[in-house]
Amino acid sequence: MDFSYSPKVENLRAELMRFFDASLYPNEAVYQQQVRRNRAAGNAWVPVQVIEDLKPLARERGLWNLFLPKSSRAPQGLSNLEYAPLCEIMGRVMWAPEVFNCSAPDTGNMETLERYGSDAQKDRWLEPLLAGDIRSAFLMTEPAVASSDATNIQCSVRRDGDDYVINGRKWFASGAGDPRCALYIVMGKTDPAAPTHQQQSMVLVPANTPGIEVIRPLPVFGYDDAPHGHMEIELREVRVPVGNLLLGEGRGFEIAQGRLGPGRIHHCMRTIGVAERALELLCKRVQSREAFGKRIADHSVWHERIAEARCMIEQARLLTLKAAYLMDTVGNKVARAEIAMIKVVAPNMACQIIDWAIQAHGGAGVTEDFPLAGLYAGIRTLRIADGPDEVHRGTIARLELAKHAIRLEQ
Amino acid sequence: MDFSYSPKVENLRAELMRFFDASLYPNEAVYQQQVRRNRAAGNAWVPVQVIEDLKPLARERGLWNLFLPKSSRAPQGLSNLEYAPLCEIMGRVMWAPEVFNCSAPDTGNMETLERYGSDAQKDRWLEPLLAGDIRSAFLMTEPAVASSDATNIQCSVRRDGDDYVINGRKWFASGAGDPRCALYIVMGKTDPAAPTHQQQSMVLVPANTPGIEVIRPLPVFGYDDAPHGHMEIELREVRVPVGNLLLGEGRGFEIAQGRLGPGRIHHCMRTIGVAERALELLCKRVQSREAFGKRIADHSVWHERIAEARCMIEQARLLTLKAAYLMDTVGNKVARAEIAMIKVVAPNMACQIIDWAIQAHGGAGVTEDFPLAGLYAGIRTLRIADGPDEVHRGTIARLELAKHAIRLEQ
Amino acid sequence: MDFSYSPKVENLRAELMRFFDASLYPNEAVYQQQVRRNRAAGNAWVPVQVIEDLKPLARERGLWNLFLPKSSRAPQGLSNLEYAPLCEIMGRVMWAPEVFNCSAPDTGNMETLERYGSDAQKDRWLEPLLAGDIRSAFLMTEPAVASSDATNIQCSVRRDGDDYVINGRKWFASGAGDPRCALYIVMGKTDPAAPTHQQQSMVLVPANTPGIEVIRPLPVFGYDDAPHGHMEIELREVRVPVGNLLLGEGRGFEIAQGRLGPGRIHHCMRTIGVAERALELLCKRVQSREAFGKRIADHSVWHERIAEARCMIEQARLLTLKAAYLMDTVGNKVARAEIAMIKVVAPNMACQIIDWAIQAHGGAGVTEDFPLAGLYAGIRTLRIADGPDEVHRGTIARLELAKHAIRLEQ
Amino acid sequence: MDFSYSPKVENLRAELMRFFDASLYPNEAVYQQQVRRNRAAGNAWVPVQVIEDLKPLARERGLWNLFLPKSSRAPQGLSNLEYAPLCEIMGRVMWAPEVFNCSAPDTGNMETLERYGSDAQKDRWLEPLLAGDIRSAFLMTEPAVASSDATNIQCSVRRDGDDYVINGRKWFASGAGDPRCALYIVMGKTDPAAPTHQQQSMVLVPANTPGIEVIRPLPVFGYDDAPHGHMEIELREVRVPVGNLLLGEGRGFEIAQGRLGPGRIHHCMRTIGVAERALELLCKRVQSREAFGKRIADHSVWHERIAEARCMIEQARLLTLKAAYLMDTVGNKVARAEIAMIKVVAPNMACQIIDWAIQAHGGAGVTEDFPLAGLYAGIRTLRIADGPDEVHRGTIARLELAKHAIRLEQ
Repeated sequence: MDFSYSPKVENLRAELMRFFDASLYPNEAVYQQQVRRNRAAGNAWVPVQVIEDLKPLARERGLWNLFLPKSSRAPQGLSNLEYAPLCEIMGRVMWAPEVFNCSAPDTGNMETLERYGSDAQKDRWLEPLLAGDIRSAFLMTEPAVASSDATNIQCSVRRDGDDYVINGRKWFASGAGDPRCALYIVMGKTDPAAPTHQQQSMVLVPANTPGIEVIRPLPVFGYDDAPHGHMEIELREVRVPVGNLLLGEGRGFEIAQGRLGPGRIHHCMRTIGVAERALELLCKRVQSREAFGKRIADHSVWHERIAEARCMIEQARLLTLKAAYLMDTVGNKVARAEIAMIKVVAPNMACQIIDWAIQAHGGAGVTEDFPLAGLYAGIRTLRIADGPDEVHRGTIARLELAKHAIRLEQ
Repeated sequence: MDFSYSPKVENLRAELMRFFDASLYPNEAVYQQQVRRNRAAGNAWVPVQVIEDLKPLARERGLWNLFLPKSSRAPQGLSNLEYAPLCEIMGRVMWAPEVFNCSAPDTGNMETLERYGSDAQKDRWLEPLLAGDIRSAFLMTEPAVASSDATNIQCSVRRDGDDYVINGRKWFASGAGDPRCALYIVMGKTDPAAPTHQQQSMVLVPANTPGIEVIRPLPVFGYDDAPHGHMEIELREVRVPVGNLLLGEGRGFEIAQGRLGPGRIHHCMRTIGVAERALELLCKRVQSREAFGKRIADHSVWHERIAEARCMIEQARLLTLKAAYLMDTVGNKVARAEIAMIKVVAPNMACQIIDWAIQAHGGAGVTEDFPLAGLYAGIRTLRIADGPDEVHRGTIARLELAKHAIRLEQ
Repeated sequence: MDFSYSPKVENLRAELMRFFDASLYPNEAVYQQQVRRNRAAGNAWVPVQVIEDLKPLARERGLWNLFLPKSSRAPQGLSNLEYAPLCEIMGRVMWAPEVFNCSAPDTGNMETLERYGSDAQKDRWLEPLLAGDIRSAFLMTEPAVASSDATNIQCSVRRDGDDYVINGRKWFASGAGDPRCALYIVMGKTDPAAPTHQQQSMVLVPANTPGIEVIRPLPVFGYDDAPHGHMEIELREVRVPVGNLLLGEGRGFEIAQGRLGPGRIHHCMRTIGVAERALELLCKRVQSREAFGKRIADHSVWHERIAEARCMIEQARLLTLKAAYLMDTVGNKVARAEIAMIKVVAPNMACQIIDWAIQAHGGAGVTEDFPLAGLYAGIRTLRIADGPDEVHRGTIARLELAKHAIRLEQ
Repeated sequence: MDFSYSPKVENLRAELMRFFDASLYPNEAVYQQQVRRNRAAGNAWVPVQVIEDLKPLARERGLWNLFLPKSSRAPQGLSNLEYAPLCEIMGRVMWAPEVFNCSAPDTGNMETLERYGSDAQKDRWLEPLLAGDIRSAFLMTEPAVASSDATNIQCSVRRDGDDYVINGRKWFASGAGDPRCALYIVMGKTDPAAPTHQQQSMVLVPANTPGIEVIRPLPVFGYDDAPHGHMEIELREVRVPVGNLLLGEGRGFEIAQGRLGPGRIHHCMRTIGVAERALELLCKRVQSREAFGKRIADHSVWHERIAEARCMIEQARLLTLKAAYLMDTVGNKVARAEIAMIKVVAPNMACQIIDWAIQAHGGAGVTEDFPLAGLYAGIRTLRIADGPDEVHRGTIARLELAKHAIRLEQ
């Protein structure tokens, strides 16, 4: 369990940090302005120019598709452990991952295609995703049921001749606001009569298929996150060829399991970067202002918070590295306790630290002048997305209790 | 210290609750739609029709200016203790207080005028405010300094002949987004050489005075709260007659002290209403959905949270009533420990309960489909506005330590 | 809901505080010495002289049996609301309540006898208890089962002719260590076949009945609390006349319900006194020592804790007063939510404040030089005794959910 | 930063766990009985037989002095990283470390002698300590001052001819209760006029030197921890030869710094073992009892706690391993942030988990029937010993702020 960074990773980290200093941080305000300008011009749902400008630069420097595990199409792929420190850095600016073609949900979708897709499916969808030419969304959660229990999912995927016909309403389809979003991976029931965990399947649905209606962008706190967006989508008699099925009927849970591990750990890695950013902003702010006769940094209540923040970040990072190591070495299934742990730990940790940072900034903290409120909204939502805290804690507890199983009848 | 509701208050409560059932809750979606429609039409900064429609109904039922303490212009005024349960109800819908002409910052501004204004000032500004014809803003906080320590405030108010000339930048001027906002109460330095607490004064500034520029609405967690708004405002060589001074030069702190007590307790009363609303939504949600084979309400983790929420609300309400009682009987100055306590307790309590309620709602909790995320943004900001938690805790601690003063030299 | 103190209560408070200043605080070290001396002499399980010396003084000043509600035998009895501020003061010194014949579990036992006892039972047991001549214990909890669910209680109470024959093992029989403890009130099953809540009965058992074996004093965080003690007791074929039954067969739950309300609120009242004492000690300590160039009281981290402590105490006290008021006016059954709330709130609040006070005292805080560690042990145990937090939170949540009941089938 | 266990460590772990299963757990009750028997016989301050019986067995199996870093006298010494998982296991039973000659404060004292002692000092004291023939204490903390700031320490060490003459009162001299405790390492001022951090020195003082009076064992919560004990000790004109000085006059701080790093991390390692034990006990308990119709383990509130506990332990362990790794590779000084972090994290984490475990055990949790209350007392004290949380948080915060230093004058 060696967490040291290899020379290859050290080089990528250095390159990435240089890139952030040179091209990301200086463009944070630019990004905001461009979105604002688009919105004022009547449509915020268009690609943001600064991202498009930065993508070729990132690609040039070898900072492209870093998330991708070693595979036939990515012979130089990184392990989860190698990717972790890089992904963490990308988390420091909310829109940064897209610059490196490493943004959710595309990374999870690309991994899903790589693992479970047929060659034809890969050619059709994986290639343009890897090239950053199109984007994708993942349609799982539904507004009408407690989707924290995925067996509740109701969307119908009915076989009809050589087609599947899909009916259902999905929401929180992140990224579906982008006009380049061309692919939906949809989870739904192919066989309501099958055993609970074999009812669901996953189907590839082109975003322009007739019957699809994007109802609205869901605001997260007050942010619509345009042009990315979290969309509510109605599917009415949406028809796709049976070849669009992933892996096999009834294997939706299996794919979800395989997809969610990497998706979750990427979120956690980025979340650690968010927390580092928030702590950095906090430390700068309390040193730059005075109140009641001394720097705010000299009021010891802030020492408590800064110290707690540092302790929390260090611990969450190490646990994330352990989870990454286990995923690399013994697989997502054996690592499921650790994946569940970081999924609980990282967003809760970051929410607390961002909250302290907001408090340190006074009124400025809740505005757009600092990225804090926006980060809070995103990370708070992460305590619900990809399984709420309660479900992951349940998983951890079940595994823990099993270690000390007591049979009452003894 | 009798917290029972008098028959008069009981009647008003009943009337108010009937009004909410009949006219407020059913119009929550309408309000959203109207703001959205205004925004889509190019300007969200106009009065919302549903509020204008409801105002006369509220007035008709005697639900108007309830916040106003007994005085020459309000012979039927309520005490703080009497107003508390009514204000709490108004807090249940974010935009409701305006319907009853009881919204911040107008209520605090009206109290300030009533207490410290000359007759001419009252005629000019208090009357139209009491009638709901105009609105007002309070310009104290500044972006450039830690305004938590009000001695930091830099805005210059320079005497020049029969005028004051004002220069400074203010922000978080809540309500200044409304086109009917006609009056700014501005805090600034008349004498930088005076003893620290006698440097500041308060001046009445008509919103249409030359030299005033409203820079932008400050978003709060992504919400611009149009048409109310929290504005950043630049004042450049803004000139008002000396008769616009409130109370006297150098008495800004004294007024702030007098104003903030009632302003703070009103916020706390409303915040308790917010918490009740959040808990109610939580209880309904967990009973309406199932996961893992039983109602979410039957998972005991939710019992812990519901019980804690109920304990927290009950306690915060009682402490608020005590503070109100003390303000009524011994005055804001003697009650300053209790005012500081509720200012810390109420928003922290409500933030926690709203957070649990959001979690109970899953993804829906962060969207506009429920009022929770919006309420969170508002209440979280309240932990900073009108003095951040840290400052109020400092006040409480200082008073507590003084009770057990130890002199080291003994 | 008037929480003001009546002149009668004000007089008693003043008298009680004078008594504490004159006779309690100065004797805290004496009490410790006497117990230590008794222990060194081979038996700590004998009455402590200082208590015996103070009792007549307290009685003389009218500070005797203050807990007792108005009744035929206590025509001047106090209401719960009146007793609350007095009981709180008594809580400031752990052994103080006995000086006023107001200590647990005697007060709860006396109330039980007063409410549910026959005249003969009252003559035999209530009179000497009121006189402070004997003491009593309450035998409910059992080591073998989760007694948090009282239906689990297994102790057998078998009718045999004119006797009941009792077999069972009880523990945490507080006060049973005292050689003057003459009466046990025992809960056990008279009818295992009856409906769940009618299986249990309560029986008066003289402590010297054959078949009773006091196994051991249970240490609480290392304290045996001699000579009071929390005893484990075995009952083997213990035989008492049927006349010793309280109220009726199968009515044990009913009595427990009636007994536990007052018992719990008394604990909470005292707990508030404990918290006040801890905060007072904390404030004195941080003002009396310096570290890193300034008084510990000037490190703002302590301001946060002191302020939080004051907020927590004020709120818990008000909630306790509300519960007392409701018990007085609408009865223990209607007040059960509030009783459950304070039973959770008060000990958790006090544990946190004592913990901060310990931290403020450094090493001294965990020793016998200050009462803090001992108080922590006692109050921590109170989070379990008389129903653990989890059970009370369950009660509160059930009542809350019922207010917003949703029927899924609608 | 490779945290994998080497084969050597794996073998030692396996051996140690076998030893615990065979000889430690089965003797926990025996230990309690023997102490109780000694106490009943009039003197608890004598070695406990079961420890003496187990020591040769441990030594035989190579489980002796494992704490000792590689050095001339310990050619097979382990690194901190290697020792961590072994020390953790030893923490599972409070008295276990002595069996392996790995108990505090002897380990810290032995390291101090090894690092800073002269050959003569090593021969005289280190050898018998390594052999387990004598024990030692560390006399630093003083009752009269806030010892959290070590510059406050007042004990006088006055040069007088070829002797030092020591006067002062020390307390919390752990282990000084043991009759075999032969050596005190005493910190005191040799030069009150020197710069603050060069006033203090460390001196080796034989426990039987005239002028030493052991005043009393300090109870920790209610535990005296006999025969180990935490003693208050008066030194009056205690005279030792100048050769007993460690390292040099005025170098006390330097030694303290060097000593406390390893001492602290050992405490943290053991604390993780304590937390694991508590969680194990919790998991067993909630599976062994029923309440309200189901196993306590099936109430989801316990899932939350178990999951949080597992997350907290994993993270604290990883951070401890990181600190150990840094101490091994870059030294205690560079690792001081990480050492401070684990010193805060580990005891707070363990206190919370033990508290949950106590709650899960009901009344039994606070008694001697389970090790929980005793462990709580010990670990709670650790939040004060070797520097209170506040001081360590201050260190962490200072280092963090320095990373983002802002100069206000810019």
